Amino acid sequence: MTNIGILGATGYTALELIKLLLPHPEARIVRMTSRSDAGLSIEECHPSLRNRLDQSLVEFSADDFFENVEFAFSCLPHAAASPVVKQLVDRGIKTVDFSADYRLNDIETYNQWYQSEHADQDRVGETPYGLPELFREQIKGATLVANPGCFPTSSILPLAPLIRDGLIESDDIVVDSKTGVSGGGRKPKPGLHFPESNESVMAYGIGTHRHGPEISQIVKRFCGVESQVVFTPHLIPMNRGILSTIYVKPKSGQGSDSIRDCLQKFYKNEPYVRITDSAPRTRDVSGTNFCDIGVFSSGNRVILVSAIDNLIKGASGAAVQNFNLMMGLGPTTGLLI
Amino acid sequence: MTNIGILGATGYTALELIKLLLPHPEARIVRMTSRSDAGLSIEECHPSLRNRLDQSLVEFSADDFFENVEFAFSCLPHAAASPVVKQLVDRGIKTVDFSADYRLNDIETYNQWYQSEHADQDRVGETPYGLPELFREQIKGATLVANPGCFPTSSILPLAPLIRDGLIESDDIVVDSKTGVSGGGRKPKPGLHFPESNESVMAYGIGTHRHGPEISQIVKRFCGVESQVVFTPHLIPMNRGILSTIYVKPKSGQGSDSIRDCLQKFYKNEPYVRITDSAPRTRDVSGTNFCDIGVFSSGNRVILVSAIDNLIKGASGAAVQNFNLMMGLGPTTGLLI
Amino acid sequence: MTNIGILGATGYTALELIKLLLPHPEARIVRMTSRSDAGLSIEECHPSLRNRLDQSLVEFSADDFFENVEFAFSCLPHAAASPVVKQLVDRGIKTVDFSADYRLNDIETYNQWYQSEHADQDRVGETPYGLPELFREQIKGATLVANPGCFPTSSILPLAPLIRDGLIESDDIVVDSKTGVSGGGRKPKPGLHFPESNESVMAYGIGTHRHGPEISQIVKRFCGVESQVVFTPHLIPMNRGILSTIYVKPKSGQGSDSIRDCLQKFYKNEPYVRITDSAPRTRDVSGTNFCDIGVFSSGNRVILVSAIDNLIKGASGAAVQNFNLMMGLGPTTGLLI
Amino acid sequence: MTNIGILGATGYTALELIKLLLPHPEARIVRMTSRSDAGLSIEECHPSLRNRLDQSLVEFSADDFFENVEFAFSCLPHAAASPVVKQLVDRGIKTVDFSADYRLNDIETYNQWYQSEHADQDRVGETPYGLPELFREQIKGATLVANPGCFPTSSILPLAPLIRDGLIESDDIVVDSKTGVSGGGRKPKPGLHFPESNESVMAYGIGTHRHGPEISQIVKRFCGVESQVVFTPHLIPMNRGILSTIYVKPKSGQGSDSIRDCLQKFYKNEPYVRITDSAPRTRDVSGTNFCDIGVFSSGNRVILVSAIDNLIKGASGAAVQNFNLMMGLGPTTGLLI
Repeated sequence: MTNIGILGATGYTALELIKLLLPHPEARIVRMTSRSDAGLSIEECHPSLRNRLDQSLVEFSADDFFENVEFAFSCLPHAAASPVVKQLVDRGIKTVDFSADYRLNDIETYNQWYQSEHADQDRVGETPYGLPELFREQIKGATLVANPGCFPTSSILPLAPLIRDGLIESDDIVVDSKTGVSGGGRKPKPGLHFPESNESVMAYGIGTHRHGPEISQIVKRFCGVESQVVFTPHLIPMNRGILSTIYVKPKSGQGSDSIRDCLQKFYKNEPYVRITDSAPRTRDVSGTNFCDIGVFSSGNRVILVSAIDNLIKGASGAAVQNFNLMMGLGPTTGLLI
Repeated sequence: MTNIGILGATGYTALELIKLLLPHPEARIVRMTSRSDAGLSIEECHPSLRNRLDQSLVEFSADDFFENVEFAFSCLPHAAASPVVKQLVDRGIKTVDFSADYRLNDIETYNQWYQSEHADQDRVGETPYGLPELFREQIKGATLVANPGCFPTSSILPLAPLIRDGLIESDDIVVDSKTGVSGGGRKPKPGLHFPESNESVMAYGIGTHRHGPEISQIVKRFCGVESQVVFTPHLIPMNRGILSTIYVKPKSGQGSDSIRDCLQKFYKNEPYVRITDSAPRTRDVSGTNFCDIGVFSSGNRVILVSAIDNLIKGASGAAVQNFNLMMGLGPTTGLLI
Repeated sequence: MTNIGILGATGYTALELIKLLLPHPEARIVRMTSRSDAGLSIEECHPSLRNRLDQSLVEFSADDFFENVEFAFSCLPHAAASPVVKQLVDRGIKTVDFSADYRLNDIETYNQWYQSEHADQDRVGETPYGLPELFREQIKGATLVANPGCFPTSSILPLAPLIRDGLIESDDIVVDSKTGVSGGGRKPKPGLHFPESNESVMAYGIGTHRHGPEISQIVKRFCGVESQVVFTPHLIPMNRGILSTIYVKPKSGQGSDSIRDCLQKFYKNEPYVRITDSAPRTRDVSGTNFCDIGVFSSGNRVILVSAIDNLIKGASGAAVQNFNLMMGLGPTTGLLI
Repeated sequence: MTNIGILGATGYTALELIKLLLPHPEARIVRMTSRSDAGLSIEECHPSLRNRLDQSLVEFSADDFFENVEFAFSCLPHAAASPVVKQLVDRGIKTVDFSADYRLNDIETYNQWYQSEHADQDRVGETPYGLPELFREQIKGATLVANPGCFPTSSILPLAPLIRDGLIESDDIVVDSKTGVSGGGRKPKPGLHFPESNESVMAYGIGTHRHGPEISQIVKRFCGVESQVVFTPHLIPMNRGILSTIYVKPKSGQGSDSIRDCLQKFYKNEPYVRITDSAPRTRDVSGTNFCDIGVFSSGNRVILVSAIDNLIKGASGAAVQNFNLMMGLGPTTGLLI
């Protein structure tokens, strides 16, 4: 049994994390922090947890964590995360960080896309990227793991094996992603106000979304190949789920059959990646840690379609996978299969 | 005042058409047919029309139409339309046909994609395509006009001027479309059952949707250029609207600025095409005949985003535009501007 | 043609009002004010109005209105409305006020429920309540009209004729209302954040919602009878529409038939009230000024079900009805029928 | 470990049941039947079960069940259930029946409301009603248990303790329920077609819904008191959840405080009933077996608001509660707490 601390426990990913950890046989939540809501009981913050977790939110204290917490999940946003995570990791507390602070390959790219002071620059580029399907061995031995972004998870899982094995052109990839509104976080904003999001679809962050460089950099890290990915997210009137439609050019001699074979072989023993015959739907992975991937052909393109739950496989489920790996537990412990 | 007949008046496009025609100063609905619901009053079929239109659905009779109807709108599905439309047009009744029967350039393509007997083959390839922005002069003098498909409208409006003027590569176009569920028609089907569509997104008809060849053929007709369009529609949990995200490669020397200029110039005097600075949202065109188009840059691609209401600009609004043209009325008569 | 000024033009009811007035043959919008967004063009604020209305938002000035505006619609919230409306009405500018400031019968009730300073107390109780179906004659001659609340409209229309004619017990009425989220206004709030409202239903303001006393007071004003109404609103994951399910006790000798007859007679010549046989659905009145009312029987109760579009019949459509009356125009001028 | 058979495994309640049983430590699914889809693999029917359950649907055979199944859940609809359930129970196979066939107190009421031949009339009125919070002891020893209807669960849990203890008038109760669309089952129907249900609310089955008599009869069974319940369900554009707003008259000397005390005392040790301070929301119980109940005051009424997940506490979660009781397992075994 591991004593768990959760930093920034008021958001949607934290709520999903708590719901995953409550029945987890090897986890016991002992601390939950909030900058804004310290003092509130967790059920005042998340009414769905009534009668399930009788604890209050506290302000973060490094000493308190050092004394009481064996494993930390940081659900703090980028730039707010690294100053706190640094303190934990410096003292040897194993940590999964949900923010973008430790995901990229170099601090220059971070500075360019995040325009924030980074409090722990030395660990950028040195921190394993928490996609167990690609980086399992590095995650196992790590003290700190950077939990992946939701769009990158849905894009890298289908793309990485194909680029590494040279089945597709890496310089002409279009990723058109559709996300539910919970991906925008819990804080009310005009664009996420119900009457604005409902009965509407829009693209956003076209050419400027920070998950674009994350996809290319992790593909580079895994495959050793530069890639050109045009990434466009869209906001869909639903709570949960990401569907990514990925348009790739097969290299000469390749097609949807060989591409499907490659993915099936690569993910053969992975419990949470399912190669599907029919078109994946986000509803079939909702509430689960699965990533469903379909392979289709259209004209001179092969189309990969992936579906995940943005809050589970795209955030808190992946974090529990990483927790299991870092603590030497079975890969599906406490996670639905 | 023109006496109007509507064929197949029980579906969603027919309902929108009726709502547009009721306040239209030059239209009077005198006949509405239904194969399945003849005998019902229109308000039993469409309760939103209570107290607004006191008529009953009748079975189609060519003689009856010949005597009483001056202008017909056929909302019948493909293959069911041409046998009826033929009778009307043979007798000189001006007609707008909503089906795909008269849209394509040749009967071979029709046979290949629709696998149906076509009852009026000679008019295939000879019928004006009812996008007034591209084919106004042909529509003006026509007895029969083929009303465009909803996805093609959202794709061809942004693409056609760019291909004709040679600003983009025509052989590498990706169209990723998102449609509300009303596009699937009024008949209940498993995939359109509320609990299946709601809280989910999926692609469908990947590589096999019939609007793919329609896009290429109409681009050819307008621009004289062959194009390669990879078209993938997605089902979105909302009632109305289509957003098409179109990934194009600018030719050397071109970019988002020149592409935007081209569109702005081309649509300068068009009342229903708006070139927008911000990302188009389907909610901003919902219930209207507008097509909003945005132009953005991402890596080596230019991204065109178009938004229409699938039932208005994608169907019944376009039909009223065509009616106005064919009857010599003003372009916005009876249509919201 | 009347020169129109709109106060507080950035909200949802103002947008609907603008959309109704644009094609209105006797209205010309000449001023739109905003406290927060003065200087913005109206299409920056409401992108759906692109190319439709080329004006900017201005700060309110009484002199400017006096010189340029013949008729004002105030979409300001309660307490913010009366100081401005007072200035307009004092100068004789005909005004429809959307707020609650002038709806109630006495200032005591206003103070008790709104806890705000009222800047124009003398007009409280002296201002006609803008439900044309009940107060047509008073509205006709008025300079100021208090536009009704959305829930009261959906409740009073079915109840008032029955109470006046003594068909039902007035002291035991339960009104259970369901509203779309646009009723909560355009300002983002935690409870109206998409992921909170979507896939959920909740009651709110139980026993404390300000539309409760409005219903009772207007029933009193029209019928001369005190009533006891238990009113409970619920938030529904949809944009528009209010469905009110009203549980009444028929007096001895009365039942659903006589109650239906009474309503049918009372609303016989009203263009916007439809007594339906089947259960009203909000979708059938969406985007229209109709109020559909159904009458049903269940045990010892009669159940009235009413459906309106909260932004049209519940706000801006009613305002245009009042405008037409106050200006001596036909009852359906510029309003869909 | 108990060998489980599921009858009628293609619907929504069966899918939820399977998802609850897969991680249940004492259940092993060995048979799943379908009249229409025998031969299909379960993942063809429910794609969300890919890689999770490798079994095919079979036709029902009593002999096969007798040999291989220790515990049966019947998800068959009313009238289809009793002929099959009778065979199982006659042979001593413990069974939870999801249909209405065994819920009512007498065959006359069944015949009146269901107009179907009942194949197992002797067990009507003799079968425990599967609400563990009210009928735990009877369920424990039973071979057959009638799983409650979803609306009755949401109504009876708040009402029964209050009627039994004489705190409220039993002859004047209004239950206004709002349900997600999954309650209508998986079969496509016009009223449940996405574009019809979405962006709309309606009441249905007013005065005629079969859950009305179920509520009264079970209240009678538990409290020994006749009650008059006016029950009206409404269809809400969401997938899951029931909110019931219940208007009761406190007896003299009673009020919301004593009513809340009574419920708190009664459900003190129940793991799945939570008495809440704030207004219950269906989203807070979604995916769980909880029933949240709030108590409020409005005029001369007390208002009880209850929230459940219609597919879990309203169906499959209750079934697992009953399974645990019937098999002597702990009350929360395999069920989220």
